[in-house]
Amino acid sequence: MCPKTGREMNKSRFEAFSDGVFAFAITLLILGVVLPEARYATNRELALALLRLWPNAIAYGLSFAVIGIMWQNHHALFRLVERVDRRTVFLNLVLLAGTAFIPFATSTLGTYPTMQAAAFLYGVALSFCATAYNLMLSHLVASRAFHANVSPAAIAQTVRAYRFGWVTYVGAMLLALVAPVVSFAAYVVVALYYLIPRGLDADM
Amino acid sequence: MCPKTGREMNKSRFEAFSDGVFAFAITLLILGVVLPEARYATNRELALALLRLWPNAIAYGLSFAVIGIMWQNHHALFRLVERVDRRTVFLNLVLLAGTAFIPFATSTLGTYPTMQAAAFLYGVALSFCATAYNLMLSHLVASRAFHANVSPAAIAQTVRAYRFGWVTYVGAMLLALVAPVVSFAAYVVVALYYLIPRGLDADM
Amino acid sequence: MCPKTGREMNKSRFEAFSDGVFAFAITLLILGVVLPEARYATNRELALALLRLWPNAIAYGLSFAVIGIMWQNHHALFRLVERVDRRTVFLNLVLLAGTAFIPFATSTLGTYPTMQAAAFLYGVALSFCATAYNLMLSHLVASRAFHANVSPAAIAQTVRAYRFGWVTYVGAMLLALVAPVVSFAAYVVVALYYLIPRGLDADM
Amino acid sequence: MCPKTGREMNKSRFEAFSDGVFAFAITLLILGVVLPEARYATNRELALALLRLWPNAIAYGLSFAVIGIMWQNHHALFRLVERVDRRTVFLNLVLLAGTAFIPFATSTLGTYPTMQAAAFLYGVALSFCATAYNLMLSHLVASRAFHANVSPAAIAQTVRAYRFGWVTYVGAMLLALVAPVVSFAAYVVVALYYLIPRGLDADM
Repeated sequence: MCPKTGREMNKSRFEAFSDGVFAFAITLLILGVVLPEARYATNRELALALLRLWPNAIAYGLSFAVIGIMWQNHHALFRLVERVDRRTVFLNLVLLAGTAFIPFATSTLGTYPTMQAAAFLYGVALSFCATAYNLMLSHLVASRAFHANVSPAAIAQTVRAYRFGWVTYVGAMLLALVAPVVSFAAYVVVALYYLIPRGLDADM
Repeated sequence: MCPKTGREMNKSRFEAFSDGVFAFAITLLILGVVLPEARYATNRELALALLRLWPNAIAYGLSFAVIGIMWQNHHALFRLVERVDRRTVFLNLVLLAGTAFIPFATSTLGTYPTMQAAAFLYGVALSFCATAYNLMLSHLVASRAFHANVSPAAIAQTVRAYRFGWVTYVGAMLLALVAPVVSFAAYVVVALYYLIPRGLDADM
Repeated sequence: MCPKTGREMNKSRFEAFSDGVFAFAITLLILGVVLPEARYATNRELALALLRLWPNAIAYGLSFAVIGIMWQNHHALFRLVERVDRRTVFLNLVLLAGTAFIPFATSTLGTYPTMQAAAFLYGVALSFCATAYNLMLSHLVASRAFHANVSPAAIAQTVRAYRFGWVTYVGAMLLALVAPVVSFAAYVVVALYYLIPRGLDADM
Repeated sequence: MCPKTGREMNKSRFEAFSDGVFAFAITLLILGVVLPEARYATNRELALALLRLWPNAIAYGLSFAVIGIMWQNHHALFRLVERVDRRTVFLNLVLLAGTAFIPFATSTLGTYPTMQAAAFLYGVALSFCATAYNLMLSHLVASRAFHANVSPAAIAQTVRAYRFGWVTYVGAMLLALVAPVVSFAAYVVVALYYLIPRGLDADM
């Protein structure tokens, strides 16, 4: 009941706020799946309009996986962390700003799946998040924010996994400039890959 | 305060995230109730436009019941569960992706209540969720994730109830192809039926 | 850690889910304040368009107060309650369905403040919520769900306050049919009145 | 498990509800970044349309920072507070109403960054929030709601910091009437300034 006097934020409120943004952003994705505004006079017209939304449906599933993975990684990371300081809160806000941007990028990708600009924008959003994650992780390592019983080897493995994630996202982003559909497919492959646990993630 | 070292996720954050998506998806349903974009010049015009939204209002109430029931079932199920592993988290994400899709399917059903494509899409969304629920339940049973004091008979009864739910949703989905309005009515009947507690649900 | 074996729901998850819907519904209200779709070429045009939104702004503030009061009442009520059974959960879902409907009614009222249909629809939403609240309260009283140390006098006072609230909302709804603007004003007066604590509310 | 009998609200539910509105409002900001409704036929057209959204992207980042800072300040303030009474709940609701309004003001500012009306509306939203914060803080001080171990000097410093914040926001709002783009820039500078911890904030 007494207030904490250190410089750290209460970790549970930090996590609850982050979870809230993850949960809201993931649910908002559906707003990117919209029927073109028209009155469909027949069942056939409506069915065709719905079927034409298949790229939006794939983009919806993709981003659901992406944000779901980010939420899991956030959870896996912060259960190892003991202290949340101002800089962590700031970098986390940057990460959340990238996450909350994903619904817009998803909607654009689902509507224009064959255009470079859409696939590139999607890559920018994911690379932005991956960059924020890596900066936050670097700060956590540098400020020795981890619990004492977390082994240096486990931390090093997590750092490697996050760097690898960054490279793949930036790679897929650059790929978008020359082959947007291949880039879209790469996002899906990377997401499926990350659904398989590795390193610290596996301990979640 | 010390980090867990097992492979399980913290159950309370798992539940909080799921609750967030359920609560957010259920609140987003209202975005499917929209007045056609027009300036209504007289009270009579506005009143008629509002009255013509009655299928949207029924679809809203139906999906509110459906997601409300799913939230209750989720709660009833996981209070019996002791451990949440990666596979459970993954199957739960699939379930949540289906849940977050319901507002779109609801909006389509409310706008085109007499068309096969709309009633079928709604059935696809519910069947998808029911499938994810059954897969998750099978995994929980296979991985012995339940508390030790939950009786095998209670688990078997839950499994039967979930399978029965799956059959009714898939049945209503197929019915949509031949009789969309009857299918719509079937969704309402099934939802009302599930509002009555049975098996493990009754213990909630 | 061990599962509860009674028929009650975990009260804290019940409250968290309800709080989630209240918080989301109250934040979604802003989606009812929209500029008519047009490109405003000059500052003067934009300023006039924004100023013309004043009924939307009042409706926004009104509904923010209404949902805020409902959240406070929900909180004040359930802190006195010991057990949450299935019927309470069901009636609470009905209440939340009414609450999540308020953003649509608010948007309609703000856009057509002088039309009977809009003021009546708003009254229907509030009366629906007030009815659900009264049914839920009656059930809580009948099932002796209150903590043992809550006095019968306090309960009786709350019941009276809730009935009085129901009468005022239904009255304002009926008033909408003859004098929509007076009804709109009445909603504001009632909301302001309820911001002043009384009875059990005052103990919150 | 026993109900509290004082006049205070449960602080954790108060915080959870506020966090919900903050997290939801911050995620809703992305709805203000929308492509003009059109079918873009070529990649070049889409890329240009996305690039033209840069003021919306800046406004999005700005408001993400603003709401993020408000959430941090809310957290930093209430960890020092022992009691939450009805008046605090009311003033907090006023604050949240201002916060939930920010997505609309952000969308307007991002779409019309060079118009006085848009920059002024944005300033109105921020000044409204700053006023609510100052009134709430004054009430907390007057009602001696702080924990006993919070020093008067720390409280006085927080009061000064909040007053200074109010002055800057009102100043930027008035500046909007003569130089909207300078005012927009001022909002960004103030937000960046507040990202640097000071006074009680630094203890968060």
